[in-house]
Amino acid sequence: MISKEMYELGSKKSTIRAIAEYAEKQAKVVGKENIYDFSLGNPNVPAPEYIKETIIDILNNEDSCSVHGYTAAYGDPESRELVAKSLNKRFGTNFSGKNLFMTAGAAASISICFKALGERDDEFIAFAPYFPEYKCFVESTGSKFVAVKANVSDFQINFSEFDKRINEHTKAVIVNSPNNPSGAVYSEKTIIKLADILKQKEKEYNHPIFLISDEPYREIAYDNVEVPYLPKYYDNTLVCYSYSKSFSLPGERIGYIVVPNEIIDFDVIFAAIAGAARVLTHVNAPSLFQKVVARCAGLPSDISTYENNKDILYNGLIEAGFSCVKPDGAFYLFPKSLEADDEAFCEKAKKYNLLLVPGKDFGCPGHFRAAYCIKTSTIEKSIPLFKKLAEEYK
Amino acid sequence: MISKEMYELGSKKSTIRAIAEYAEKQAKVVGKENIYDFSLGNPNVPAPEYIKETIIDILNNEDSCSVHGYTAAYGDPESRELVAKSLNKRFGTNFSGKNLFMTAGAAASISICFKALGERDDEFIAFAPYFPEYKCFVESTGSKFVAVKANVSDFQINFSEFDKRINEHTKAVIVNSPNNPSGAVYSEKTIIKLADILKQKEKEYNHPIFLISDEPYREIAYDNVEVPYLPKYYDNTLVCYSYSKSFSLPGERIGYIVVPNEIIDFDVIFAAIAGAARVLTHVNAPSLFQKVVARCAGLPSDISTYENNKDILYNGLIEAGFSCVKPDGAFYLFPKSLEADDEAFCEKAKKYNLLLVPGKDFGCPGHFRAAYCIKTSTIEKSIPLFKKLAEEYK
Repeated sequence: MISKEMYELGSKKSTIRAIAEYAEKQAKVVGKENIYDFSLGNPNVPAPEYIKETIIDILNNEDSCSVHGYTAAYGDPESRELVAKSLNKRFGTNFSGKNLFMTAGAAASISICFKALGERDDEFIAFAPYFPEYKCFVESTGSKFVAVKANVSDFQINFSEFDKRINEHTKAVIVNSPNNPSGAVYSEKTIIKLADILKQKEKEYNHPIFLISDEPYREIAYDNVEVPYLPKYYDNTLVCYSYSKSFSLPGERIGYIVVPNEIIDFDVIFAAIAGAARVLTHVNAPSLFQKVVARCAGLPSDISTYENNKDILYNGLIEAGFSCVKPDGAFYLFPKSLEADDEAFCEKAKKYNLLLVPGKDFGCPGHFRAAYCIKTSTIEKSIPLFKKLAEEYK
Repeated sequence: MISKEMYELGSKKSTIRAIAEYAEKQAKVVGKENIYDFSLGNPNVPAPEYIKETIIDILNNEDSCSVHGYTAAYGDPESRELVAKSLNKRFGTNFSGKNLFMTAGAAASISICFKALGERDDEFIAFAPYFPEYKCFVESTGSKFVAVKANVSDFQINFSEFDKRINEHTKAVIVNSPNNPSGAVYSEKTIIKLADILKQKEKEYNHPIFLISDEPYREIAYDNVEVPYLPKYYDNTLVCYSYSKSFSLPGERIGYIVVPNEIIDFDVIFAAIAGAARVLTHVNAPSLFQKVVARCAGLPSDISTYENNKDILYNGLIEAGFSCVKPDGAFYLFPKSLEADDEAFCEKAKKYNLLLVPGKDFGCPGHFRAAYCIKTSTIEKSIPLFKKLAEEYK
């Protein structure tokens, strides 16, 4: 009657959805204020005031048909130029508008890239822990998703495991830094090593291997840690960006793909991206927000709330006896679960109304994700509960 | 290196894109004011003032994290309820929010439906003249696109041709009324006959056949012509809607799918739609505009400009000797070309800087499309040129 595959993708409850439903039910029992929901990556910092001001300014001063009308498939030319200029200023790159394909955010960007590049028998590699949707996005294009085991000591790339997975079918490698869920930022050393391996493998297999940089958390990086800009290290890079996190606009579906001039065949790649956007019905990213983000591109994001939350939660968990790699970015902690079975651990945490996501979901069992983009007071009140939970394991 | 299929979809210049490039080049020769570009379906009526007021009101009075945050995959619950209520008021239906899946507009809605329903060997039928993108959207899901020849006498459904095309592989039938490009509105008689045939064929083939109503032009209907609401005539209907035309918001990517309770298995269909939206990365339609259209749902669209343009162009063309079915809706005329080869005709029209789209693109050769969502003065100035063009054929 319908596509079984789509039915399964739509009916299987994701862990996070199951947690959301549990949270709602449990809130009725113990009160919403006693639920410590660390499961969702929804920014809790309001969009900067300049976003609102820019929207109102555009509405008051620009022509309605131009603000709300169709843009070209790849985006409004002026917005593309402004975004390119902002990137050049920050990263010393040499982009122009033609290097930008405006999209409805990071998920759209990466799925367009997968669809543009992938053919049957192709493989896309991601490093655990990884965003779980990669798998179904890649598989829906007919390609194969390949996961590389995590390096749990620091969540940089596990190169010995990578070496086992890369092969002549590898079409692309996905990098997500700052990382969801580990909060790790890949160091320049890691990126240089990765680029070197890819260049060598391109020669060995005699075909390009693309590097897809999924970087919605780029601006959420702490203590001035450097987040290397990948096109500077590797020519065959596609940058997938979203303004969801930096401008707290996740619902507005706005971002872009960068296709650098240095890529192996710009015109062919750009055309394939346009074709993929067409059949995924992702041409013409939301037009008002194309203008808004272009005008605001490069303006500072306020990450002080996240930084404060991170410190409170990280210190609290360490004090409680948890073991956790200190994150350099994003808004997640990814500590070790206190028993090997991370699902059992997260079940046990529910006793204290601590709602956590098992690491297994991110291809990295034995850990759990705690998103700290929530109220600071909720985090503060949760620390004694984490301590009680840890007590049970002593 | 990349997906050949996507490259072809992205690199082949569509007729309309080719015309746009020609228009730009030719404008440099003869001046922009002397180009009569009838090729684009981009509304030229500004969005109603209440849209702007609603956006500003929401920005000033609602919580930023709720306005710009993630909504549920299927949309903001309150927006879904408001849209359902507005539909019930207009059509006497009995929808609630759960019948609505908010989407990024009509193209997203129909491609989600194709992906949700279609399996290999399935066939999707559309009636010529049809929106050309149907074909690549259907084919990208792995299903087959089947076109039914036009009834050129009135552009209602050609039932004898339909009878030749419907078969046991038919998964769904796509209806687009008011129609792009013919401007025809399918009468209640047509819809009843279509529904009767589908019910009978469902029995004969012993499986459901879905009716997909692609209706972004619903509100653009003239002289109080009735546009039948399809779920009232046929249970297995999915309604795909966009606010692009009624609110002049084509760039904002906002619309919905209605899944009625009466459909054969609501939970299964809705889940398949959710799954398709997931892999097409179309979960969570743009959040601000979900709220905006929900608050404005049911408010009147100003179609007076289109109606006036239609009358001027229609009367001018008839006077010039063209033959054309008078449209009841949308903002296109679809006259007969003055020679059998519609492409040659449109080439010849370029001599007068009249830019028209051949009917062949819509599966209906021997005709051309003229979009009249352009400046009234441009239309007025074009009439003598159409007359000169017609003179050439006398």
